[in-house]
Amino acid sequence: MWNFKTPGIPDEEFERLEEVPITKEEVRVVQISKARLKPGYTVYDIGCGSGSISIESAHQIESSGKVYAVDFDSKAIELTKKNLEKFGISNVTTILGNAKEKISELPEADAIFIGGTGGDTKEIVELCSNKIKSGGRIVIGIILIETLFSVLELIKKLNFSNVDVTQVTISKSRKTSTGTMMLARNPVTIISITK
Amino acid sequence: MWNFKTPGIPDEEFERLEEVPITKEEVRVVQISKARLKPGYTVYDIGCGSGSISIESAHQIESSGKVYAVDFDSKAIELTKKNLEKFGISNVTTILGNAKEKISELPEADAIFIGGTGGDTKEIVELCSNKIKSGGRIVIGIILIETLFSVLELIKKLNFSNVDVTQVTISKSRKTSTGTMMLARNPVTIISITK
Repeated sequence: MWNFKTPGIPDEEFERLEEVPITKEEVRVVQISKARLKPGYTVYDIGCGSGSISIESAHQIESSGKVYAVDFDSKAIELTKKNLEKFGISNVTTILGNAKEKISELPEADAIFIGGTGGDTKEIVELCSNKIKSGGRIVIGIILIETLFSVLELIKKLNFSNVDVTQVTISKSRKTSTGTMMLARNPVTIISITK
Repeated sequence: MWNFKTPGIPDEEFERLEEVPITKEEVRVVQISKARLKPGYTVYDIGCGSGSISIESAHQIESSGKVYAVDFDSKAIELTKKNLEKFGISNVTTILGNAKEKISELPEADAIFIGGTGGDTKEIVELCSNKIKSGGRIVIGIILIETLFSVLELIKKLNFSNVDVTQVTISKSRKTSTGTMMLARNPVTIISITK
């Protein structure tokens, strides 16, 4: 359970698996903020991994809202289910399968998170651009330069507003025997757009 | 007005003055998340600048909570008041004066933000450590290496738990005549601790 109103559940509160990625706390918080959520919203979490974005979203949209958590990896879906149970969340539906097929079956969304979608990100953004409501937000977390380029090129062609490209680089402290050092994490680029 | 539940009001929504600093959107969102806020909380915003942290906090703690926004710069207090009016916020009290004197007059806090406090940060953290409730969070935004060192040294002596040191470096895109470049901002280190 998370008893606070603010997003930002510490990473260590989630059940984890080495093979399943998690959107880490600080990057997750920025992504959630870029989605601009409200109670009652319909949200997709495409490439849900450990389910951390789904769980933070579920808190923000409350029981009147609904999250669809999609992943093609059954280990990710199982882990997401475990975390949903751990946090006492009942407004998230998990969907095992290829997002490119599953998206068409979902109701229109107010906000969509896309991440961890390998080489298909551009196609998934394109599909989501037809499922997001007017005024809704798409938030894409990107690691690969190739994905960043292809999504930027796609967005130039689509009719979106408020295009925001933010690169986030986080370092966290570690105690050594002689002091405190900063340990770097990889930069993540977050693209967010309004339909 | 901000109609969303999530923090992360775009910087351009705030009234600004060149001489008064603002905690920019992404860093602000991480700071708000580290404070772990709830409705009903009492919050200090020490060195409130443009008031952006006060306003985001006010949304999270709702009308049952209270923010005390302190700054020694009358321009900052005036600007904060303007922003409070713009966002229709009524649960923030602004206090013009030296935080080192004003803190003693405030009720105990559930969460305290400290930033933009020049060379006094260490002393202010020390004063705040006596005003924060057990389980409450202090979140310190730091730019200067000297401040980072002095606050870290102080924290070693105080009896706090969940010490988190996170450096956040943000870059934002800018369109040039030939493409999209990333523009770097200065790193900010956020120290957060639980009493």
